[in-house]
Amino acid sequence: MRVVTLEEVLEELRTALRDKDVPRAAKLVQSLRPADQADLFEELDGEDQVALFAFFDPADSADVLEEMEDSDAAALARLLDPADLADILDEMELDEAADVLGDLDPEEAAEALREMEAPGEVIRLLQYPDDTAGGLMSPPMVKLRRGWRAREAVAYLRRMAPSTQMAYYLYVTDEAGVLKGVVGLRDLVVAPPETTIEALMDPEVISVSATADQEDSARLMARYDLLALPVVSSEGVLLGVVTIDDVVDVLEEEASEDIQRFGGSEPLEMSYLDTNVVTVTQKRIGWLLVLFVTATLTGSVMRLFESELQAVVALAFFVPLLIGTGGNAGSQTTATIIRSLAIGDVRLGDGLRVWWHEMRVGLLLGLGMAAAAYVRAITWEPDAALALTVSLSILGIVVWATTVGSLLPLLVARLRLDPAVVSMPVMSTLVDATGLLIYFMVARAVLGL
Amino acid sequence: MRVVTLEEVLEELRTALRDKDVPRAAKLVQSLRPADQADLFEELDGEDQVALFAFFDPADSADVLEEMEDSDAAALARLLDPADLADILDEMELDEAADVLGDLDPEEAAEALREMEAPGEVIRLLQYPDDTAGGLMSPPMVKLRRGWRAREAVAYLRRMAPSTQMAYYLYVTDEAGVLKGVVGLRDLVVAPPETTIEALMDPEVISVSATADQEDSARLMARYDLLALPVVSSEGVLLGVVTIDDVVDVLEEEASEDIQRFGGSEPLEMSYLDTNVVTVTQKRIGWLLVLFVTATLTGSVMRLFESELQAVVALAFFVPLLIGTGGNAGSQTTATIIRSLAIGDVRLGDGLRVWWHEMRVGLLLGLGMAAAAYVRAITWEPDAALALTVSLSILGIVVWATTVGSLLPLLVARLRLDPAVVSMPVMSTLVDATGLLIYFMVARAVLGL
Repeated sequence: MRVVTLEEVLEELRTALRDKDVPRAAKLVQSLRPADQADLFEELDGEDQVALFAFFDPADSADVLEEMEDSDAAALARLLDPADLADILDEMELDEAADVLGDLDPEEAAEALREMEAPGEVIRLLQYPDDTAGGLMSPPMVKLRRGWRAREAVAYLRRMAPSTQMAYYLYVTDEAGVLKGVVGLRDLVVAPPETTIEALMDPEVISVSATADQEDSARLMARYDLLALPVVSSEGVLLGVVTIDDVVDVLEEEASEDIQRFGGSEPLEMSYLDTNVVTVTQKRIGWLLVLFVTATLTGSVMRLFESELQAVVALAFFVPLLIGTGGNAGSQTTATIIRSLAIGDVRLGDGLRVWWHEMRVGLLLGLGMAAAAYVRAITWEPDAALALTVSLSILGIVVWATTVGSLLPLLVARLRLDPAVVSMPVMSTLVDATGLLIYFMVARAVLGL
Repeated sequence: MRVVTLEEVLEELRTALRDKDVPRAAKLVQSLRPADQADLFEELDGEDQVALFAFFDPADSADVLEEMEDSDAAALARLLDPADLADILDEMELDEAADVLGDLDPEEAAEALREMEAPGEVIRLLQYPDDTAGGLMSPPMVKLRRGWRAREAVAYLRRMAPSTQMAYYLYVTDEAGVLKGVVGLRDLVVAPPETTIEALMDPEVISVSATADQEDSARLMARYDLLALPVVSSEGVLLGVVTIDDVVDVLEEEASEDIQRFGGSEPLEMSYLDTNVVTVTQKRIGWLLVLFVTATLTGSVMRLFESELQAVVALAFFVPLLIGTGGNAGSQTTATIIRSLAIGDVRLGDGLRVWWHEMRVGLLLGLGMAAAAYVRAITWEPDAALALTVSLSILGIVVWATTVGSLLPLLVARLRLDPAVVSMPVMSTLVDATGLLIYFMVARAVLGL
């Protein structure tokens, strides 16, 4: 397994660095693929990283920086001499170079840019926020013209020898740079040499604007199985290309964010162990306090029914069970609906269908849980009326929880808020407090309190 | 926006079908891209789907079936005449054809296979489970030999005119079919015509075995930015290729599964609205019952302290708050660690580092929540001892919850169980019941009960 190997290499690497044998350490690292090299670099301290880079040529250093976490790459970039950094940035993919520069202080970035050979394209990329299509794209290296023959296009490619990243879809533009079509490299290669590009190209190119959200761009590519997505200005001028490897990263990142939000925490921007303790605390305390207020509301409902509780203390024993079941049933529904919305299985207009679906699920679940609760209650306290109370309450609470859990994300999405952020705490608040209200009302009616 | 358009087209389509104007309906659908056509098909009933397919040629029908959800595609396949189905399957990508056949009853699949032109390759694919690399791969359409010149290879490609899906990485095999290297199509195109394949190819190909887990294969491709991943037998024979579009789907599917598990439900195999109510209920009831037993344990802890509750009923008001805060703090931690494990930010050996990180986060969060709880308690009941009880308890519970929440997923992963499945319910059980135990013990000590 690769993972084991990597840890063994790290051991060896640490030994070599302890022995001050930097050439051997550099050779060890360079025997690996860039993604693995980056992993090792992230385990080292800054001094060792800089020492190793002294033995790398700029292109190899560029590969490592491209694969490192953005924050780690920026930290390392800061330690480098501006001239050395500029040499490395010149070798990097432009979108990755822009990411590193964007994470530096403005003066540091300016100094590195001054030392770069061709900073123009990078500067142009820096204007787009990280989470837009513009922030993900690289400038297109090759542009074909409609009038060219396949033979001419292949000769042009051979002359340009473009980077691997760019070469599988070839975009066709007019004199003004406006995107006119796309030709697959495969189609170009297998075409008779005298075919015109116009005849080969697909004029219906899917493209996005530079300000489009990165997640929307990623889903578009996933949906239509695209390896690359052209980014255009409002005039249709081809500005750059987003490639599938960037998109895989975006989809992974968005899934991580949603999963952390489901856990009830603001997403971390860096990897967990790299995020300092105070930042982690800040990302979490807000939600804990919101849910604290929620729980307080639930406590207030209990205070309202203090006399009932005093009369039948046993009522209190079932409170964790009722709140818990309501909250769980609600979060099951909410998680399913939020994810279905994100991947497009459920649309905003599906409210009624979703609710009818959940209503029936809620009834079935509620009946099952009511039976379980009746048995549990009657074996705890031999009191049929109390058992009936608990059992009826749990049925009501589950149906209520699935209703709230299914409609809330749709409502939140309609208000143009992010359902993954807002739904869970609001759902808990509504379900916990009103759930206990249901419980005590049922108790009053059944037990005649 | 495309979404609006699609719904408008659906309206028009429904009108055309109501008017029995199938040719117009077919034309409407065919004006769209396959992924959109598939979406429309999923909205129609079987009769209309079959009527439309009568106006499609097999290649177009194949595109639609490829893009439909597996279960919907199988349902439609069942309605088709076996000979028509076989014509369509002949046009489909082999991995997708195998998926459809795998979802049919054995007799139906056998009948369709009998009618197919070249069923051999598909039959070979059918032996691999859906969730392995073998289940994702398509057979390689072109294989190069080391001795060939670049010129010969291009001529060969032109002769084969392989499907777009296959053509960006070209694999090199020996006479026995053993994988020897890979050549990028771009490198082949820009290479001098007389270069040998041996000189062009990268002999260090990353490959997986056919029985490898699909998620592991997907992460490998994401990690090394691969557009395709060759699948080999235990003897190294090239069996097929997994492409990046399949991988994007796998990563999305795995993220959906994890998100549903965080919500406390077994993942659904199909899209939400397509899953019937009883199946949804079955996927959820198990967890509700497990968490019900958990809550019962919590109730048992309350029963243990019945006399304390009778003496100070106000103690009960804080139960939802303490359970809630403990559960939330625990699930924040668990979600972060599980995701970090999944994407490789945290490794199994990092237990101590993770615990030390969480310990400090837990202390900070606990102190913050203790302050909030003190204020809330003292304004509810003017009783400093009670407020101190609540406040000390919440500090202890938060630290305990973050400890359990951080170590549990690592422990579960070490036991080779899936942390996303097991961690949350075990965490709730441990944190809820023991949290209340902490509370009542503190209450005894501070209030002298």
